Amino acid sequence: MAKEKKLVEAITSMEEDFAQWYTDVVKKAELIAYSSVKGCMIIKPAGYAIWENIQKSLDEKFKETGVENLYMPLFIPESLLQKEKDHVEGFAPEVAWVTCGGLNELQERLCVRPTSETLFCDFYANEVQSYRDLPKIYNQWCSVVRWEKETRPFLRSREFLWQEGHTVHATAEEAIARTEQMLNLYADFLENELAIPVIRGRKTDKEKFAGAEATYTIESLMHDGKALQSGTSHNFGDGFARAFGIQYTDKENKLQYAHQTSWGMTTRVIGAIIMVHGDNSGLVLPPRIAPVQVAIIPIQQNKEGVLDKAYELKRVLEKGFKVKVDDTDKSPGWKFSEQEMRGIPVRIELGPKDIEANQCVVVRRDTREKMVISLDEIENRLPEILDAMQKEMFERAKTHRDSHTYVAKNYEEFKDTIANKPGFVKAMWCGDVECENKIKEETTATSRCIPFKQETIADTCVCCGKPARQMVYWGKAY
Amino acid sequence: MAKEKKLVEAITSMEEDFAQWYTDVVKKAELIAYSSVKGCMIIKPAGYAIWENIQKSLDEKFKETGVENLYMPLFIPESLLQKEKDHVEGFAPEVAWVTCGGLNELQERLCVRPTSETLFCDFYANEVQSYRDLPKIYNQWCSVVRWEKETRPFLRSREFLWQEGHTVHATAEEAIARTEQMLNLYADFLENELAIPVIRGRKTDKEKFAGAEATYTIESLMHDGKALQSGTSHNFGDGFARAFGIQYTDKENKLQYAHQTSWGMTTRVIGAIIMVHGDNSGLVLPPRIAPVQVAIIPIQQNKEGVLDKAYELKRVLEKGFKVKVDDTDKSPGWKFSEQEMRGIPVRIELGPKDIEANQCVVVRRDTREKMVISLDEIENRLPEILDAMQKEMFERAKTHRDSHTYVAKNYEEFKDTIANKPGFVKAMWCGDVECENKIKEETTATSRCIPFKQETIADTCVCCGKPARQMVYWGKAY
Repeated sequence: MAKEKKLVEAITSMEEDFAQWYTDVVKKAELIAYSSVKGCMIIKPAGYAIWENIQKSLDEKFKETGVENLYMPLFIPESLLQKEKDHVEGFAPEVAWVTCGGLNELQERLCVRPTSETLFCDFYANEVQSYRDLPKIYNQWCSVVRWEKETRPFLRSREFLWQEGHTVHATAEEAIARTEQMLNLYADFLENELAIPVIRGRKTDKEKFAGAEATYTIESLMHDGKALQSGTSHNFGDGFARAFGIQYTDKENKLQYAHQTSWGMTTRVIGAIIMVHGDNSGLVLPPRIAPVQVAIIPIQQNKEGVLDKAYELKRVLEKGFKVKVDDTDKSPGWKFSEQEMRGIPVRIELGPKDIEANQCVVVRRDTREKMVISLDEIENRLPEILDAMQKEMFERAKTHRDSHTYVAKNYEEFKDTIANKPGFVKAMWCGDVECENKIKEETTATSRCIPFKQETIADTCVCCGKPARQMVYWGKAY
Repeated sequence: MAKEKKLVEAITSMEEDFAQWYTDVVKKAELIAYSSVKGCMIIKPAGYAIWENIQKSLDEKFKETGVENLYMPLFIPESLLQKEKDHVEGFAPEVAWVTCGGLNELQERLCVRPTSETLFCDFYANEVQSYRDLPKIYNQWCSVVRWEKETRPFLRSREFLWQEGHTVHATAEEAIARTEQMLNLYADFLENELAIPVIRGRKTDKEKFAGAEATYTIESLMHDGKALQSGTSHNFGDGFARAFGIQYTDKENKLQYAHQTSWGMTTRVIGAIIMVHGDNSGLVLPPRIAPVQVAIIPIQQNKEGVLDKAYELKRVLEKGFKVKVDDTDKSPGWKFSEQEMRGIPVRIELGPKDIEANQCVVVRRDTREKMVISLDEIENRLPEILDAMQKEMFERAKTHRDSHTYVAKNYEEFKDTIANKPGFVKAMWCGDVECENKIKEETTATSRCIPFKQETIADTCVCCGKPARQMVYWGKAY
């Protein structure tokens, strides 16, 4: 009992201190460990298994759209990074530089890739000669490095894992279509697999990717009312192609510049899963992405037949689900706490009395709903229980997001809402970066996106009162 | 016809110049591209797809033995690298150093991991407290950097992909058992999946891993008679545990040092696949690891019904195999050359006359054996054709290896064989490093391994004539 308390007490409640709750959960659910390398984290097996499932699911979806994986070098020569002006200005201040190789100083510094547009462009300039070589729809899974000053597990660290897709096309239209396609793929992935509702839209010029013509984004809302950019897809037009000389001869044998896109999703989304679904008992994992979906916890496991029955049940259920039996010598109460902390979607309690009655007790992690189910029925019932949980987790997150989305018609309303009501604020904007800067300075809120689904809230900009051009989602963000 | 010639002529024959043949194949089969980063290669989709299959297959086998994946930082602080004396001496001369982060010089240099023993040890020192925390059987898939002077695609490059497993155990016996288990897993993987026969054995002290008590290795023989170290598994005893303070309290509450292992396999094995199985038409991929197993090549594809029938056949076959239809507008001859260059195990030729006769022509890549098979039978016949190919590729490689393995009883014989007969030389050794050094200096051959299966070839060391202790495989190596 002492031990059980300890596990639960180890988490600060989210109402008391959300940031501390988050840190407690990532550590107590054993998702990460801090390392001796400042700002870099160790992703422990329980955390990495979530990333493996994300990779597997996304990678399949990518490949269905014609994506091929490859691997580019970790390093970028300084001169290559400098080829596209906006890009280098955006990234140079936050890269790590390799200056020595072996015992010798390098003639040219190499940066550890913060993103690989420059390497892909250099590669494409050689690979792409004719319209027959197009399109190229390539992606890589790798780690990247950005020398952040303030770091937080999953949300912002000096090294993180991601995938970066880089494509090259004959026409501007094709590039735009691919940018949209990948953004929608990300959005569907978050909503269907991670049970996280998203706003789809475009970044303002101020917030777009360094070197992009347009950045599309999906924005999600965390439990504390802060926004998280959860995936981006960039249309480069022919900007990089001009900087790197990526040209092809078209069917009329005329030389044309190619058009490009890039798109990425990172281990950040694990942060989103934690902050959208977690509660004061720990992690809550959406069934579709959970590395372990069912924990069978034997009660009085030393009694004859209990463990045997638990393993028998495992064999039946693991045909369709990822199941583990917790047969350690800890108390059932401790095991319950641990299963809750780790966010395992469903636990099945199975003791001598249950076995006698040919039943088990099924408890959903999100609602803690208890169901007594016949052992003959459990195999058929489990799919619907997990499906219902997945669906309701999404609905709850959406209700939370919608009830924390506000409208502001003028600057007073806007400032008041940002200051007092954590969440998204929808407000009109004139399109001027000065208003965006002023809002950020005075309220710390940033433009999250110009949503594809526009609404007319007012005719004038919420900040300057000039004629409005767009409705924008604003919010404080991670 | 001009184009077809060009594709084949692009490869130097292996008899003329094996090194050039290798380079031609990796480029013409589109496995790699050179990058602007000296010594680093781009692994192109055709090459990366092989690695993905290797990863998938190995990862499943790992997990069956209880391995869990995680992710450690890319960087190692200099002070951490220096904690184990032999280890730092082995690796420091060939690491890349990060000295600047963002716009600032770092207080302590960070090396880009050449291998992660030091990071894992630092981690385990915190994670392991009690016997209940043991064993930990962790692995990561990542890239590592070693600042090599001479580089060759897959075989030796400044950055390469690999997996590195790192385990920690309560006892020396458990660590030894895990070291052996993983070596045998690697050996079975090469033999069964990659169709590459291997010699299993132990490295001499001179050749073992920096900091290891014992290094086990699998050695394979390339078509040119050179050896390739294809996977290693290290037993560290408690050496690293003592350097890093990895201690646990046992059941009697006594403090004990833990015992460790590490084991790795790299993108080098793709080089082995190329050099063991390839021929003068290009790559030959073992069916079990081939990203595309069957290429359907329509003949007179513009005639009505040909392409439809090709796609229909694809739909039937792709239930069990990875199949593509080459429906590009190139000539059939060009497509045949391309399928051969890329090493696709089987091609199916399908033209109007075949369709009329309800048959297709199946051609094996390795033997070029042509089989006319009924379209009603092809689904049932394909598995046995691919199985036979897999098996015969292994047998051929084994016959080649065995017929290029020689015995030398004295130094004259040894020198003559090394100089004139490319392959392995089995010879006795006294165990003295001076003989090993002398042999290397005078013949350029190195000790490949002390095989687990010992034979007595003579009573005396092949080099010095003193009493022999072991039989050793020697050879020139990549």
